[in-house]
This record gives sequence, C-alpha cells and structure tokens, in this order.
Amino acid sequence: MDYVYGPGRNHLFVPGPVNIPEPVIRAMNRNNEDYRSPAIPALTKTLLEDVKKIFKTTSGTPFLIPTTGTGAWESALTNTLSPGDRIVSFLIGQFSLLWIDQQQRLNFNVDVIESEWGQGANLDILASKLAADTAHTIKAICIVHNETATGVTNNLAKVRKILDDYRHPALFLVDGVSSIGALDFRMDEWGIDVSITGSQKALSLPTGIGFVCASPKALEASKTAKSVRVFFDWKDYLKFYNMGTFWPYTPSIQLLYGLRAALDLIFEEGLDNVIARHSRLGKATRLAVEAWGLKNCTQKEEWFSDTVTAVLVPPYIDSSEIVRRGWKRYNLSLGLGLNKVAGKVFRIGHLGNLNELQLLGCLAGVEMILKDVGYPVKLGSGVGAACAYLQNNIPLIPSRI
Amino acid sequence: MDYVYGPGRNHLFVPGPVNIPEPVIRAMNRNNEDYRSPAIPALTKTLLEDVKKIFKTTSGTPFLIPTTGTGAWESALTNTLSPGDRIVSFLIGQFSLLWIDQQQRLNFNVDVIESEWGQGANLDILASKLAADTAHTIKAICIVHNETATGVTNNLAKVRKILDDYRHPALFLVDGVSSIGALDFRMDEWGIDVSITGSQKALSLPTGIGFVCASPKALEASKTAKSVRVFFDWKDYLKFYNMGTFWPYTPSIQLLYGLRAALDLIFEEGLDNVIARHSRLGKATRLAVEAWGLKNCTQKEEWFSDTVTAVLVPPYIDSSEIVRRGWKRYNLSLGLGLNKVAGKVFRIGHLGNLNELQLLGCLAGVEMILKDVGYPVKLGSGVGAACAYLQNNIPLIPSRI
Amino acid sequence: MDYVYGPGRNHLFVPGPVNIPEPVIRAMNRNNEDYRSPAIPALTKTLLEDVKKIFKTTSGTPFLIPTTGTGAWESALTNTLSPGDRIVSFLIGQFSLLWIDQQQRLNFNVDVIESEWGQGANLDILASKLAADTAHTIKAICIVHNETATGVTNNLAKVRKILDDYRHPALFLVDGVSSIGALDFRMDEWGIDVSITGSQKALSLPTGIGFVCASPKALEASKTAKSVRVFFDWKDYLKFYNMGTFWPYTPSIQLLYGLRAALDLIFEEGLDNVIARHSRLGKATRLAVEAWGLKNCTQKEEWFSDTVTAVLVPPYIDSSEIVRRGWKRYNLSLGLGLNKVAGKVFRIGHLGNLNELQLLGCLAGVEMILKDVGYPVKLGSGVGAACAYLQNNIPLIPSRI
Amino acid sequence: MDYVYGPGRNHLFVPGPVNIPEPVIRAMNRNNEDYRSPAIPALTKTLLEDVKKIFKTTSGTPFLIPTTGTGAWESALTNTLSPGDRIVSFLIGQFSLLWIDQQQRLNFNVDVIESEWGQGANLDILASKLAADTAHTIKAICIVHNETATGVTNNLAKVRKILDDYRHPALFLVDGVSSIGALDFRMDEWGIDVSITGSQKALSLPTGIGFVCASPKALEASKTAKSVRVFFDWKDYLKFYNMGTFWPYTPSIQLLYGLRAALDLIFEEGLDNVIARHSRLGKATRLAVEAWGLKNCTQKEEWFSDTVTAVLVPPYIDSSEIVRRGWKRYNLSLGLGLNKVAGKVFRIGHLGNLNELQLLGCLAGVEMILKDVGYPVKLGSGVGAACAYLQNNIPLIPSRI
Repeated sequence: MDYVYGPGRNHLFVPGPVNIPEPVIRAMNRNNEDYRSPAIPALTKTLLEDVKKIFKTTSGTPFLIPTTGTGAWESALTNTLSPGDRIVSFLIGQFSLLWIDQQQRLNFNVDVIESEWGQGANLDILASKLAADTAHTIKAICIVHNETATGVTNNLAKVRKILDDYRHPALFLVDGVSSIGALDFRMDEWGIDVSITGSQKALSLPTGIGFVCASPKALEASKTAKSVRVFFDWKDYLKFYNMGTFWPYTPSIQLLYGLRAALDLIFEEGLDNVIARHSRLGKATRLAVEAWGLKNCTQKEEWFSDTVTAVLVPPYIDSSEIVRRGWKRYNLSLGLGLNKVAGKVFRIGHLGNLNELQLLGCLAGVEMILKDVGYPVKLGSGVGAACAYLQNNIPLIPSRI
Repeated sequence: MDYVYGPGRNHLFVPGPVNIPEPVIRAMNRNNEDYRSPAIPALTKTLLEDVKKIFKTTSGTPFLIPTTGTGAWESALTNTLSPGDRIVSFLIGQFSLLWIDQQQRLNFNVDVIESEWGQGANLDILASKLAADTAHTIKAICIVHNETATGVTNNLAKVRKILDDYRHPALFLVDGVSSIGALDFRMDEWGIDVSITGSQKALSLPTGIGFVCASPKALEASKTAKSVRVFFDWKDYLKFYNMGTFWPYTPSIQLLYGLRAALDLIFEEGLDNVIARHSRLGKATRLAVEAWGLKNCTQKEEWFSDTVTAVLVPPYIDSSEIVRRGWKRYNLSLGLGLNKVAGKVFRIGHLGNLNELQLLGCLAGVEMILKDVGYPVKLGSGVGAACAYLQNNIPLIPSRI
Repeated sequence: MDYVYGPGRNHLFVPGPVNIPEPVIRAMNRNNEDYRSPAIPALTKTLLEDVKKIFKTTSGTPFLIPTTGTGAWESALTNTLSPGDRIVSFLIGQFSLLWIDQQQRLNFNVDVIESEWGQGANLDILASKLAADTAHTIKAICIVHNETATGVTNNLAKVRKILDDYRHPALFLVDGVSSIGALDFRMDEWGIDVSITGSQKALSLPTGIGFVCASPKALEASKTAKSVRVFFDWKDYLKFYNMGTFWPYTPSIQLLYGLRAALDLIFEEGLDNVIARHSRLGKATRLAVEAWGLKNCTQKEEWFSDTVTAVLVPPYIDSSEIVRRGWKRYNLSLGLGLNKVAGKVFRIGHLGNLNELQLLGCLAGVEMILKDVGYPVKLGSGVGAACAYLQNNIPLIPSRI
Repeated sequence: MDYVYGPGRNHLFVPGPVNIPEPVIRAMNRNNEDYRSPAIPALTKTLLEDVKKIFKTTSGTPFLIPTTGTGAWESALTNTLSPGDRIVSFLIGQFSLLWIDQQQRLNFNVDVIESEWGQGANLDILASKLAADTAHTIKAICIVHNETATGVTNNLAKVRKILDDYRHPALFLVDGVSSIGALDFRMDEWGIDVSITGSQKALSLPTGIGFVCASPKALEASKTAKSVRVFFDWKDYLKFYNMGTFWPYTPSIQLLYGLRAALDLIFEEGLDNVIARHSRLGKATRLAVEAWGLKNCTQKEEWFSDTVTAVLVPPYIDSSEIVRRGWKRYNLSLGLGLNKVAGKVFRIGHLGNLNELQLLGCLAGVEMILKDVGYPVKLGSGVGAACAYLQNNIPLIPSRI
C-alpha cells in the first residue's frame, strides 16, 4: 500500500506537508460521524477558541475552511476586496509569485514590489508608495510572511509600523502558511487584518484545512467587498456560527479531531517553546550549511527563516539531482528549487513536529548526497557544527525532568 | 478523545458523511509524504484512471479537488459558464435550493423550475423551455441527480433525451453527490458534461475531495468561460496533468491512499454489485416504512431513492425529536428534516459501505424510537418486512463461496 | 489486506475475541517504546491499580501476563499447587473440559464433578465432598464462572458459602474469562483466591494479556507450591514490582496503552452500568430465542448467561450450517457448537463493547439464516420480542442527556 | 495518551522492542475477527510457510506462540527435554544468564560454560566436553546466537561443526531472539534443532509472538520429552495443524495481519538485503564508537554484532546517566548496561526496520550526550566516520531506481 517502499522511516524534510505526530495520526484514525450531532459543534467551538491562540489574536475570527493554502488566499482576498481594487504585493519568490498571479486573476489592480529572489520584501518602496497615496487608493497590502521558496522571513512588525507612520488604512493581509505556529507571529499586536495558514505546515496535520483569521476590520470590509464568492464566503460561516452549528457544509471529522490533538500537543509543549525549537532547528541548519562551505539563498541574516533553508549549490551541480538522490538512495525527502532558482537551490524544511536528532539525521544525509554529486564536503562537518550549537541549547524535555 | 462517548458502535445513518470501511481507515493511517516525489504522481495517475470507471466515462477528465461538494459545484459552474449566462435549474429540495443559491450568487441568470418537495424535477417544463429556446440562450441545465433532503432520484436519461429531442446544445451539469458510486450513473451514455460528487458519500471516505468530471465539451467551454476562478480553475490542473506532476497545490496524501483503497474495494465487489446492494438497502427500507404505516416523503415510486429515505411523520410528532432520541438513547445517527420539511421528516441514509444487517439494526432502532415518541408501531414489523425481502435477495458474498 | 472481504462491517458475535471500541484501536495504533523508560512503569502502575476495580478486589495482586486464557489458567494452577495435589473441578462444557485436561496434564489429582452440558456446576456434590474431606486433602476448587460453550453461569457466591459452611481451607480458583468485566464478579466478597480473564473478552481488546489476580492467600501458597514454572511464575513479577520496573520480560506496549483506554471507557460508562448493559443484551437475546420457538441450551434460568447464549436447533438442522451461512451470506460471525453439542447449538456472543442496535442487527440476521436453513421462523418475531423489552429498559446515554 | 510527551519522533535505539514500520502499524489497525472463520486459517497457512524462509528452513515446523521470548525459550526446552537431562549452556551475558536460570528452574542438569562478558561462547570447552561425552549424556547444547547485553554474536556454524566432528547427537537449541531476520541465520544448513525468536525484534512487530521452529529431530524428541507443559506444548498445535484450524487457543488477530505485512516488507526488500543492511548499520556504529575513542564491549571482531553495539564508557562516567540524558533531553532511547556491565556500558540497538539516516541521527545524539556527561568527544567525529563508510556502501533503493 505504500507506493514506493524503502526500508526504515522516510525522512521528510520538505517544507510541507510535514511530519504528523503519532498522537495526531491516532486522533484521526476514526470513522465518520454526523456533523450535525451535538458532538461536532462542541468540538468545533473549542477549536475556534484555541486556534486564535496560535494566531495570537483575541479579536480575530477564524475560519477553518476545507481547502488548501491556495484556497485560503482566495478567501482572504475575495472577502475583503472588490474587483479593480488597488493592492500592493511583494514578489520575492515562487509562493509570493503564485499569490500575485491569483490576485491578478481575481481582477485586482496589483502594484507589485519585486525583490531579487533571496531578498526580503522591499519595505522602503512600500513606504514611498504609502507616502504618495494620500488618497488612500491602496486598499490592501499583501505579504508572504515566510517565502518558502527562498527561506526568507519578512518583518511584519516593520510593515505595520510603516502603515501606522503614514496612518494608512489599507488592509494588511498576511500569508503565514509556512510561519504561523512555528515563527513568532502576532496578529493583534501587528495589526494584521487577515492571516492565513494551512494544516499541513507548522500544525503538522494532513492537508485539508485552510485557516483564515479575520480582524474586526476585515470582517467589516467583507460586508461591502464585491468580489464574487460562495464556497469561500465568510458570511455563510458567520451565519452558522450564530446558529451554533458552525458548518455551512461538511467538514472533515478526522481533521477536526486531528486539529484538537495537534493544538493539545502545541499547548503542552508551550507555543513559545515551539517557536524556540524552530529557532534552534533553523540556526543549526544554517551552521551546517556554513560548515559545508555553501551559501544560503537568503542574502541577509535579518531574513533568515527558521522553518526552511534554501541552500545554493555551486554552478557545476544540479540541485535537482541532490533531491533525486535523497529520495533514491537515502529515503530522504528534500525540497526542490522552484522556478528562478530551479537547479540552483535545494531546500531543507525544518518545521512542524520535529526534533533535533531528526534534523541531524537529515543533515548527515545531505552531507553524503553532496559527496555523491561531487561536492567536496568534509563528512561530519555540518553535523558537528550543528551539534556544537545544539548541545549548548537544547532544553530538557519538561515532562521528563 | 471521542467527544461524547456511548458504548458500542455509533450507528451512522445520515446520508453523509457515511461509514468508512476499515481497510480505508487503515490506508489513511499514515504520515505525510512529499507530494512532489515520484510516488504521489504515480499513485494519482491510477486514481484518475480508476475514478472514471465510477463515473462510467472514458472521455471525461476528472479533477480531485481538495474541497467539499459545495466547492465541486462551484468548480463545475465557474469553469463552464460566464456571468449573466442563462441556466435552467430545478428546485426540489434543500440541496438543489443551495445549489441555486450558489448559481445566483455567482451571477448567473437562473431560470428555476420548482416542484413540490417530495416530487422530482418537472421535465415537462424543461421540455417546453427548450422548445421555446430556439436562440439557444440557455447555456446549461443544472440538476441534482439525487436530492438528499427528500430522497428523490431524478431521471437523467430522460433529461438527456429531452435535450436531444430539441437538439439543444446546453451543457448538462449534474450534482451526483449522493448518487455516484451508489446509483446507476452513466456519464458518457447520458451525455453529461460535468458530474460531481464528494468523497464522504458513496465512496465512503472522509470529507475532503470534491470530484469533478468534465466532458470534452465542458473542457472546451472552460476555455472561454469568463467566470472568475483560481482555486477551482481546471486550467491549473490541466497544466500539471501535462507536466505529469498532477497537483497545482498540495493534496491530502491520506485521502489519495484512502481513495485508492476505496476504489479497490468497489472494484473487488464490482460496481454493478455495489449498485445492486444499494437497491436492496433502499427497497428494504421502504418496505419497513410501509410496514410501520408511515409515508415516504417521495411521492412516486419512479423517484424513490436507493441512497436515502425521507420518512414523513404524523403531524403530532416532531421528527427532530426522533433524531435527538436516536442519538441520546440508541447511539443511532439519523438525518434531520431540512428547511420546508423540518420537523416533518427524518431521514435514513443507506449509502456507502454498508450491509443489510447494519441497516436492520438501524430499522430496529427506529421502531423503538417511534414507540418512544408515541407512534403506535408494532415492534418488529418493519424489520420483519425488510427481512422477508432481503432473505430472498441477498447474494452470497462472492469471496466466501 | 483483509483476508476475505465482504461489504460493510463484519458483525462479530462470537463470544470472543469481541469487538474492539474505536478509541481502543486508536490507543494501540502506535510504534513500540522502550519498556525500561520511565513512561511504561508509570503507565503500568495505573493499570495494575485499575484492573483491581474490574475484579472488585482491593487486596488482590494482579499479573498482566503476555499470554492467552489458557496460559492464565496455567499460571493460576502452577503458582498455587504442587504436583499430586487433589483438586475438585467441575466439568460442564468444552472450556471446563479443557481446563480439566490442563489440570491433569499438570499432574494434579483432579476430582471431576460432571454435569450434563447445559447445566451448571453440581454444588451439592461439592458440598458432600467438602463435608467428607475433614482431612483437608482437597487443595483447591476450580470452577469456570461462565461456561462459554453452553452459556451457563455458575453461582460463585454459593460456592463460597459452601466452603465457609464447611470451614474448608481449599483455594478457590475461578476462570472468569467470559465473565469478568461483563457479569457481576466480586473477588474479595466471594473470597476468590485466583481470578483469571483474557484481554479479548469483556475488556474488548485484542488477544494477548492473560489477567491473573491473586489473593493474599494465593500469594502465600505460591511460596511453597512446587509446580515447575518459569514464564508463568508470579515470583519474577513480584521481584520487578518491588523494583518499580514491573516487567520481568517485554510486554506489548500497544496492549498496555489499549488496556488504559479500555479501562477508561469502562469507568466512563461505570462498571455497574456495563454489567447492566450485558444483562439487557442477554435478556433480549433470550426473548428472541423464545419468540423463534427455539430452546436455550442452558437448562434453567438460574444459569442463564448474559455474555453468551447457546441456542439449540431442531434435530433436522445442522447448527454448523447456520454459522457457515452467517459468514457466507450476511457477514455475521456466530459461534459454533463445540464437542458434545457440535451441530446441535450455535452461539450468540453478546459481550464486550456492544450496544443494543448491534445485537438487533445480529438477531435479524439469525432470523434470515434460520429461514435459509428451513426453520419456519416468523421474520421479525425475535427482533420484535427483543425490542419490546429493550424499548422499556435502555437508559439514555449519560454523556448525551 | 502518550505517557510522557516530547516533541518530534522518539528515536528508538534499544535492542527491542524496535521500530515498527508504518505499513505494519496499518495492517494491525483493525477490529477483532472470529479466528474460527475460514479467513484466519487461510492467513495462518501463509504465515507458517513464509516464516520458515526467515529461519532458512524447509524441514522445520514453526509455532507462533502468543508469548514472549522467555516463553519461546520455555517451549523449546520443555518440548524436547526431560527433567534431569544434562544440557550444555553458555553464559556470556545477561540474556544467556536468564536462559540458564530458566533451564535450572525447569530442573535440567545444566553444564555451564562461562566466558568473560564481552567474549563469545568458549567453543573449545564445548569441544572437550563433547569429546569426553562418549556416553552421550549431554542431551542438548543451548546457545544464544546474539547476546543482546554485550553485543556478541556466536558462531553457530562452528558449533555445528564441533557436534559433527564428535558425531554427537545432542539437540542444538538456539536463541535467535536478537538475530533471526537480521543476521545470517541458517537453520537447516547449520543443523539447528530448535530456533526461537520474538516478534518485537528483527521482525519489527509489537511484542506478542514467540516464534519456535522445530526440526524433525526436535519434533521426534517432543514425543518422549517428559517435561510438564500444556500452554507451550507443541502437541496441541500439531493437532490443530492437522485439523487445518491451526490454533489450540485464541491468537492475536492483529499480530497475524501484522506479521503478514512484516514478512511482505522483508521479502520485498529481500532477506539478504535486510541482512546486508544490518551489516552496514553495525559497521557504521562501530566506526563511530572508534572515532569517539571509546571501546566496544565486544572484545574481538569475530564476535561483533550487527544488531546491537555495547559501548564501554570510561570509569569516571556512569553509563546509566547517558541513557537517562538521551531520554530526558534528546528523545533518544538507548539500552542500559545490565547486571555485570551496569553503569559500564550503554547499548545502541540497530536492528529491525531501520535505515542509515535514522542511525546517524542517533549517533549525533550520542555525541551530544557524551559531551553532556563530560566525555571529550569531537562533535561530528562519529557521524563523519560512519558517513565515510556508508556513503560508499549504501545501495540505491531498488524500487526507486
């Protein structure tokens, strides 16, 4: 039943879908249930409350839409904007590119601020656009918090500050797909109007829930937004929220129970500890890359991502071959370079329910692959550098002290 | 971890989500995988081929969209039609009503043919509309094959015949959510242009895949359809089909493996045997209803549904109380009456991976509930009537002969 | 992966192994763990405490041996007795016969009190034997609480009373395999010295734990018992109990977690409610048998078993054919008649995590099978009789009120 | 439900119970079944045939006893020997010690050949004992193939040769608990009379099946062996084998399906490839130990074990603290030193369904722990040494080429 079997565990280090913890797999191992019985609304109620903690919002309204991140994007845009609306969007890699493509196909007037792939969003240009926009023609700022293709994390607090500096009322829409639940993310504090993520990323579930969390201002905007929408319409959800039955159409019973378990695990570990763990994993990965003598695709430390590292390979190596060998020889799944960086980078996803020894196994595998493809790595060097950092920084597991 | 525990199995007889067979639960009991590895495209390829057999099409192109039936509706409409297009749609119950609501919100010009709830689509009116439409302003006919709210199955072959009689080129869009994989359904033979269903119905999976199958004519229409769409756009799927990677965004790994297992079970049993089994279950249920002295909400035999039976209760009984007692006392999940028939009918879903003894346990439960709520049923009468039919008609299990 | 597939659920009504509740299946769905880590002893400690509640003992010492009921028998005997010891044992059916065979092969001097199959233990003969045994040559009384082959429940309180009446010091060893956790069982109150059961019976787990619970008197006896034993030796367990590591050899991690879940479910329902539920299921089954015009193999009401009913068939019917047809046509698993009653009885197991509607589905199936094999049953009669009783007696599910 | 949660996967490197592959976990994720239906005997038949391939025997008769390795030992001894029989047994570590303890408690006359812990069985002494035993008073040679406590593999071919050299008819009983299915093992070629193993070792299942495989000579011996036995008696199994129902008492349905999946995985990989993989894992581990400047508890290369490595620590370190820190800080489960080597060695189990990157993660963890406890290890040194070997020796995964 496994499609292509290899002995031992698959080492899953793509930046999503990520490893599902055993307790979550267990929680989803169940028959269907009537979603109109009293049990599912009762469960849903706890989920909606607790999901807000992951977004760090108290005033936001979450929607758990049976879709992917792409659908969550669409829900964020169509519920808050009208066709022809001017929006500012940052193009810094493949996923921001795809979001912009969606924005354009949804008939928004997209003002694209492009950066070189490997750099973060150019916030200076944002500032000048906002400064110039005294008529407030810009209706929304759309930004990917963590660009999964290049391992670049943007500074959302700074975006907020710029908006505030110019007292600009534009909506602040954030793709947190590869950040929320893993990186520091503060919806309320940063004045984010719509935050979105997907279940298969930091929450470590299967694909299938697109999380969309709307601020009161976003909800207000949804009342007049003229974009056509039905499946993704918040209005239908809100109607069922009011009725206490919560679901305008059938949710996945399994994912609801899985989400309950996933949230319980995060709260048991502590969200701040989860974020600190990702910080350790990111730092350790970057130290290994450095020890190998390779460059990080991300050009400055301020943009380093703690959920994914895109590693540049020398020109004489095809990074796709690295990914292929991982799969074929070591049962290791790495991320390909995409679009502009295809063949030039491979990616190590280090997000979700993952610990340091899992990562070290992956790093050891990457070392062997590098040797396989002719890069003169000193075997053990990356793992050693990572260990030197980790051995000083891993806390005891609290429940086992 | 179960939200509201009761001893023994839950008897799940809502018309979706339905019981998942153990082998399918097993197949989905797994970690995530890289959907860009060679394994997932190889798996997907078999699924796309085999799903066509369930739709009985060889020329259709299936899309396995990570969404629900509501999303599948939206995908069918927005890919084939343009805003303002005139479409004919039949209103015969809650689910056709919801689809029409969607059609209107998507800005189509909907020509509604309404029937009394409990009756099938009025095809005479369709015929006269088509006769009158010599200019071919009608772009599509939208019909729910099996209206889940009233247990009414429409005659799709007759719809086709009427279209042919008038040589009308309108697209033929069919909601087969509670029929495909359980009732006789022939996409190619009946000239259906888009057929849709959902994973949590006859296929007996969790919610999460909206199946949309497009005829060549529908694919052609999608090239010029002007409805705004991104997440639901077939074009993105077709692009990835051509590349052999199949997925424009992340699918649920678990549902893909689950679908593989679900299809294998259906083929092992034989699709025609699956349909015959549903016919037995439907007939047995109706015989029980008759023995109880109750009326079927469906007004004529030609519309009787083999996947769900809506039972009318006497005016002095609130049908919602029947559903509540099933849940509270017997661990039995029945379907509520919806909208116009709320309080007046309760529904027995008998679709998916279900056998006769499971149904008989449900029918025995309904008898006790009827007694509970003051209806003078003769205990054992419905089960006896059902058994009298079933004992003559159940075949031996082929693998056990 | 299912060996012989049939559509829908298998209706499992053999008197063991029985249906496993979904939460227990989930709890066991896990990788192995180091049984010497702190986690497993901590888990084991709760299990040993809580298992005592199922036996209704506070002074007993439980052993969770990785074996079956047959192994549990052997552990009970070899730890308390020496070769040549005289024991009194009751032969009333296949399982008491097998235990006696074991007792003889273990070289005890077995004084067998035989009854007709279908009758309970002859306690008058026990009384006279004890009366005669003023020298206390009888070292133990061995009795099967519930003979699974004939559906006979013996009166343990009366056995205790007889022992007390004669102030006889014999050990009181009880096979509670098909009773403990389902029937009223009071180890301390009835002065039982060793009680045994198996995980696949009322506890509704897979096979694999033989539960043996020893009174202080039995523990004392084990210090001088000369029967050869190693794997089954309580001494090794007690040594590890004292060390706090609990396991002399590797336990099944999965069964330990499964047992935790199984106990939690029983305590959530309430042990007395569990016993009352079995009483309802037993009574309903017997009413159905009566309505069919068939005889219970159990000859008197005082012996009626609430966990299994052995049904006598007319001489012109082979009861094995009933079991075969259940399997081949209805996906129903019934128990065969064994040994002396082979061909003459079939058995309906109604123990473990089972509810009334599940049983009614089974009873409907039996009616159709009876018709299949030529017995003139009125279809619906047994189900109706059972419903008439159940509809008056099923309580609301407490968690759903 | 996890007893003591830590983020990410537990790294399970005790020498049993070992990691269960996901397909095997899936196969066991099921309800109980009637073991007297036709399905279970049909399944069992394939298992008995295929298990023989793991033992490399065609003439042997396997028994799948619901017990642990300790029970399998007891079954091997009591079925072939009579109380008072003289047997030669080798004491080289904790597990051979425990087996000898069992042999003595079962009243055999045990002639113990002791070696220093860390050395293999002293076969010279065996030779001289056999030479002296012209009267053939020695009835059996008992040897642990792979002593799990010290990581010592004995040379079974040499034992056979010695027996042959002296034409000694003693039975040759082998504990293959931590070898069969992982190390080169040839029951027929080496003339082994009883081979035993446990499900939780190389077969990578939960605990619960004690495998005992008997040669024709052993079966013959069982007819006259006078040791008392019932639960472990082969005779009962053989009786049910002849009847085609296979089980004298209830097996674990889940373990039978799990074993089917486990065997399928081994055959898909190829048993010889499985053995080669273990050889790589063992070699890589030993290279790491060497790079760390630590000593292997195993004193000579000829005894090096490919399933477990016992590592000696310097006298100023308590090896138990290494195991504790693994658990508390790194979610890594290592094996303790046992008995004579308690505090002096820790053990890395590298058997079962395990691949190289998993092992490298473990080795990286051990390096950090060593640093934690004050041993001056160069971080990355062990991993680097292991990688240098592995990168040259890991084959491509055949199904992915």
